[in-house]
Amino acid sequence: MSRVAVALVHHPVLDRGGAVITSAITNLDLHDIARSARTYGVSDYFVVHPVAAQRELAERVKAHWVGGSGSKRIPDREPALDRMRVVASLEDAYAALGGPEGRGALDVYVTAAQANGVPCVGWDEGRARLQRASRPALILFGTSWGLAPSVLASADVRLAPIHGAPGAGYNHLSVRAACAIALDRLLGPRGA
Amino acid sequence: MSRVAVALVHHPVLDRGGAVITSAITNLDLHDIARSARTYGVSDYFVVHPVAAQRELAERVKAHWVGGSGSKRIPDREPALDRMRVVASLEDAYAALGGPEGRGALDVYVTAAQANGVPCVGWDEGRARLQRASRPALILFGTSWGLAPSVLASADVRLAPIHGAPGAGYNHLSVRAACAIALDRLLGPRGA
Repeated sequence: MSRVAVALVHHPVLDRGGAVITSAITNLDLHDIARSARTYGVSDYFVVHPVAAQRELAERVKAHWVGGSGSKRIPDREPALDRMRVVASLEDAYAALGGPEGRGALDVYVTAAQANGVPCVGWDEGRARLQRASRPALILFGTSWGLAPSVLASADVRLAPIHGAPGAGYNHLSVRAACAIALDRLLGPRGA
Repeated sequence: MSRVAVALVHHPVLDRGGAVITSAITNLDLHDIARSARTYGVSDYFVVHPVAAQRELAERVKAHWVGGSGSKRIPDREPALDRMRVVASLEDAYAALGGPEGRGALDVYVTAAQANGVPCVGWDEGRARLQRASRPALILFGTSWGLAPSVLASADVRLAPIHGAPGAGYNHLSVRAACAIALDRLLGPRGA
């Protein structure tokens, strides 16, 4: 298995009306996804936001927990938030992970709550692909009402929506919960 | 399979020093766990808090999203938070789920980040037990540094700690992430 990274995307994402927007940073997204990523051996957690003031906010949260006073109070947060990298765009995340070749050197996986008729890759198959991959993988999660269609269309692998209990008929997980479940399905131990 | 419920416990839980405390309610715990519970067909989500003002806060959050103005803005939250039941103690949760027999009519499952040398039930076995159960099950999650030893010791089933990637050596998931992963392991589709 090669390197696996995740990205939390704040733009371009959809609002509840289906318009492409930029969402605001949620503090617990930074913590929860950093902790889940670290638990599952993810190398980098990219927080993607085009607004400089929002990136600065994320960097201040990171500085508080990595080397700052928070790291004295709750030391367990440091190794998680230490892997968080705040970037302005998906292209910046691609470059940071893929090097000079950028996007061309990566396999990009996307997640969505709805398939919308598009063929998706099942979780067992996604897990197998990650296992045999020879180049880095970046798994994208969208905030708000999910990743914009342009991002979904540009992916190498579109993972199946997470369906819970058969017949429950509800798929509105938080992005924090969806990311945790996705990492467990893709990277967690089997038969644990 | 019989009815499965979850409870988020704010007392008795541990602080980072190992003392038994009462933790404060976190708004996103209410939302995230309600959404995960609804996704996985959980019948009830008990929020356990001994302080009346904290219970009132949780009830106000619920009222905003169930029937209140929030339900007009984001209707998807209503069917999730509708299953949230705010109670003062674990005994109240036992009575609400188990009826007159209370605790004696239930199987109580507990979760913890560390096994501390106690034999635990693996997730596949826990899943099988839920599948064949003839009486309601209540799965407990602790806030702060986890459920107090008295609660762990009184359980029928102690589930294994959630270990992420082999060798990652980090198990400090948020309770929101741990609950999502636990429900997916116990109640999610297989081979999805």
